[in-house]
Amino acid sequence: MVNWTNFDALDSYQALKNVDAVNVREVMSGESGAQRVKKYSVPMAEGMAYNYAAKAVDDDILAVLQKLSDEAQLTEKYEELYNGAVINTGEKRLVLHQLCRGQLGKDVVVDGVNKREFYQAQQDRIAKFANDVHAGKIVNGKGEKFTTVVQIGIGGSDLGPRALYLALENWAKTNHTLKMQAAFISNVDPDDASAVLNNIDVEHALFIVVSKSGTTLETLTNAAFVEDALKKAGVDPSKHMLACTSETSPLANNDKFLDSFYMDDYIGGRYSSSSAVGCCVLSLAFGPEVFARLMAGAHAADETAKEKDILKNPSLLDALIGVYERNFLDYATTAVLPYSQALSRFPAHLQQLDMESNGKSVNRFGEKVNYVTGPIIFGEPGTNGQHSFYQLLHQGKTIVPLQFIGFKDSQIGNDVVIEGSTSQKKLDANVAAQIVAFACGKDDENPNKNFDGGRPSSIIIGQQLNPETLGALLAHFENKVMFQGFVWNINSFDQEGVQLGKVLAKRVLAHDTDGALAVYSDLLEI
Amino acid sequence: MVNWTNFDALDSYQALKNVDAVNVREVMSGESGAQRVKKYSVPMAEGMAYNYAAKAVDDDILAVLQKLSDEAQLTEKYEELYNGAVINTGEKRLVLHQLCRGQLGKDVVVDGVNKREFYQAQQDRIAKFANDVHAGKIVNGKGEKFTTVVQIGIGGSDLGPRALYLALENWAKTNHTLKMQAAFISNVDPDDASAVLNNIDVEHALFIVVSKSGTTLETLTNAAFVEDALKKAGVDPSKHMLACTSETSPLANNDKFLDSFYMDDYIGGRYSSSSAVGCCVLSLAFGPEVFARLMAGAHAADETAKEKDILKNPSLLDALIGVYERNFLDYATTAVLPYSQALSRFPAHLQQLDMESNGKSVNRFGEKVNYVTGPIIFGEPGTNGQHSFYQLLHQGKTIVPLQFIGFKDSQIGNDVVIEGSTSQKKLDANVAAQIVAFACGKDDENPNKNFDGGRPSSIIIGQQLNPETLGALLAHFENKVMFQGFVWNINSFDQEGVQLGKVLAKRVLAHDTDGALAVYSDLLEI
Repeated sequence: MVNWTNFDALDSYQALKNVDAVNVREVMSGESGAQRVKKYSVPMAEGMAYNYAAKAVDDDILAVLQKLSDEAQLTEKYEELYNGAVINTGEKRLVLHQLCRGQLGKDVVVDGVNKREFYQAQQDRIAKFANDVHAGKIVNGKGEKFTTVVQIGIGGSDLGPRALYLALENWAKTNHTLKMQAAFISNVDPDDASAVLNNIDVEHALFIVVSKSGTTLETLTNAAFVEDALKKAGVDPSKHMLACTSETSPLANNDKFLDSFYMDDYIGGRYSSSSAVGCCVLSLAFGPEVFARLMAGAHAADETAKEKDILKNPSLLDALIGVYERNFLDYATTAVLPYSQALSRFPAHLQQLDMESNGKSVNRFGEKVNYVTGPIIFGEPGTNGQHSFYQLLHQGKTIVPLQFIGFKDSQIGNDVVIEGSTSQKKLDANVAAQIVAFACGKDDENPNKNFDGGRPSSIIIGQQLNPETLGALLAHFENKVMFQGFVWNINSFDQEGVQLGKVLAKRVLAHDTDGALAVYSDLLEI
Repeated sequence: MVNWTNFDALDSYQALKNVDAVNVREVMSGESGAQRVKKYSVPMAEGMAYNYAAKAVDDDILAVLQKLSDEAQLTEKYEELYNGAVINTGEKRLVLHQLCRGQLGKDVVVDGVNKREFYQAQQDRIAKFANDVHAGKIVNGKGEKFTTVVQIGIGGSDLGPRALYLALENWAKTNHTLKMQAAFISNVDPDDASAVLNNIDVEHALFIVVSKSGTTLETLTNAAFVEDALKKAGVDPSKHMLACTSETSPLANNDKFLDSFYMDDYIGGRYSSSSAVGCCVLSLAFGPEVFARLMAGAHAADETAKEKDILKNPSLLDALIGVYERNFLDYATTAVLPYSQALSRFPAHLQQLDMESNGKSVNRFGEKVNYVTGPIIFGEPGTNGQHSFYQLLHQGKTIVPLQFIGFKDSQIGNDVVIEGSTSQKKLDANVAAQIVAFACGKDDENPNKNFDGGRPSSIIIGQQLNPETLGALLAHFENKVMFQGFVWNINSFDQEGVQLGKVLAKRVLAHDTDGALAVYSDLLEI
């Protein structure tokens, strides 16, 4: 049995309080820096590596982090999770998103259903459906092929799948596997749905309505909005709309839809890219084989997350260093900086993943904790960010730990040598330069041109962003967030913080308001 | 003469240390809350209002903030700025972006050139050029009309113009003033340029190369990348490319371009949307009249920023409340949350504007300051964020001040009544609900469902996002950041923090590396 103990009740918590801080500038300078970059690297799945040379750790701190991992039973808790324990205590649910991408441990059987088989069966059904659409066996009312797929969903039903789609869109075009263009409608702002509908060929579009509960206000509104638009265009909505939902939801087995595909309560929204939620849109866009490759990459990362030795487990190590930075170095934020334009929306996905999972103040038993928990996550692709907010990162008063991601090869492969180097080399030269600039700084007599350095970062390096490496990245961060939640002894799998706003919004729409809410409603003329 | 004094040397700094904190939850509950929402509102330009009822201020704190404004001579410093003082001390430059949108004070004459006339002349030249393109007087090599305009720029030459284009794209379509589709190439990642080129009709595209110095590595690389692609497509680049640069740059008056339009050293990159940088792409996309309306809105906001009474000056008040939160309530971040899908990239622009301007550790004389300066800015449109990172904002351990933006009307005007309300009303109901949820919280016996409240926010409310209100929003935030820089006694108009990375990247590309930099270069196979 594992023990669920508050972080500050652990011996290793006290030990971490007493470790000698590492001076990043000092250790990253000269030959010592070179040695660190060689040494402080962990292989990741799919040929990638997590390099943490520029983090404020050394062998002593790593040893304490290993003790923390052992004492908090982090890998044992992971084992419990994938073997089907009720890890989501608040909602009394299992947490099974990893099972969507492969078997990690025992069979997980709930009410007589083997869950791995259930998830696999949905993927198979979706694969058949997608192949039939691509082959022109499933067609629109006029017997014509569908060319566009539109995801209607919000939060986890939007950010993850959208980030993954954008991450592979150009790779798929280059590799001749872009079967359908995808678009996304998420916001209840009517201009969101209108703009998407104005930009696509509605008569050849398939719409996926994605809501686990089948009751998400924004999504149902947008589904009705689209239904209305289809009718106005003389198109039968039931021939153009799918549902992706739980089997017990009002959207399931509903005549309004061409077909329905299922996830269940054991897949949290922000973890649902691996479930039918991601599978539908990505299989339709790229073909089921590409989705299977994405899952294979994620599964490989899930396997590496089992390793007890933190120096062999990249997501665990990343998690522990993050905890050290958050709780002992007092860094409240983390920037995610992919040097890959294809990952333009990956930071937005990680923002949800991390902040919604670990932005909590109570432990898994509902008791207030006396230490800080999940950080604030933000980020934009480099090199763009360099010409924007990096000023504060380099010279501001607040230190922000940085998570770089870089690839050796581009996706499209179209490149030009200008002044002796390709754009891809320039891109990579910039990320290498930034790590060192942040870590080592540079003295200048003019304080305005002085760089203190000492700003920690890590980098994940891969050969190319493709389905496998993308899947491994997705799982790396999911598992990092999971391990951090275990350290903080919080439930990373519920989101009670989103409820109050929903309740009050309903009251506004029902004109059942008083006090400040009534006046805001008046000001906004609701 | 104004005095440039460090913030912590002011009497009002000490006074702010000693004010009684406001309990947001308490004052925003019940009738007191209703009264605050009515009272704590300042009219903004273009019919908008800045409502700060849910901020942690009261009449006493506001009185001290007024003293701070007077003591730090904030509006006098603004007056110095727009009358042509050398406000950018580090680079010994004037700061004249406001002058692009109208005359605020005296004539500013440099080397015999009246700068307002210079900026106006560029706008007039661009207007004529854009009208000629739209009328088919300026055409491609085959005598055909241009249909697409592509901005090649990075940082301020990208984020601001892109955010403004996206903010008005659907408005322009709806109002039949979308003259050309716009696209943007910014990242040196070759996949960025390749993807844009693959998605447009290159033969009918005009490319604007935007770099004030004419030496920005990423932009010159992408310009060469595009030039190469045009040649491969059998198109003469000089008939498809414009330059937007300073008159002394290598890009100016260059045969490689169809024409060149100019800004000067007194327009910082992140403030350049009002200069030729924004004027070119937006005039080509929407027509010069729309750009003129945008500038009129910004100028109106600049005029309101002159007001000495902080209760009549929304950008000044917003700035001062932000300073109080940053320096005395110790809030290190601020989230920008527009309830408008059209403002999807406006937070990214504000992130640059704020973090690059005020992410500094030295004062305007180059001396280290002993107080924190600019916050970390992030944000996504609501309602999307509600289903993502709002969990942490509601129940996390770190309080994040919130800046909401909302409009009564949508841009496209296409809306549907579903369950008794339009999508626009649902959108607005959500923003009203969130403000109250964050401020007032809600007690629950189950601590996991408990909301402490006390999380401060403000909201800017407008009738509709259109050129005038967008211009006013742009200027509001520019002026807010400017006033905050004045309080902190820093130079908000340079960005020395971006230099070191550039230098090191050049060394990597020249293979002139050692230590950690050499090993990172090896790992990335540069």
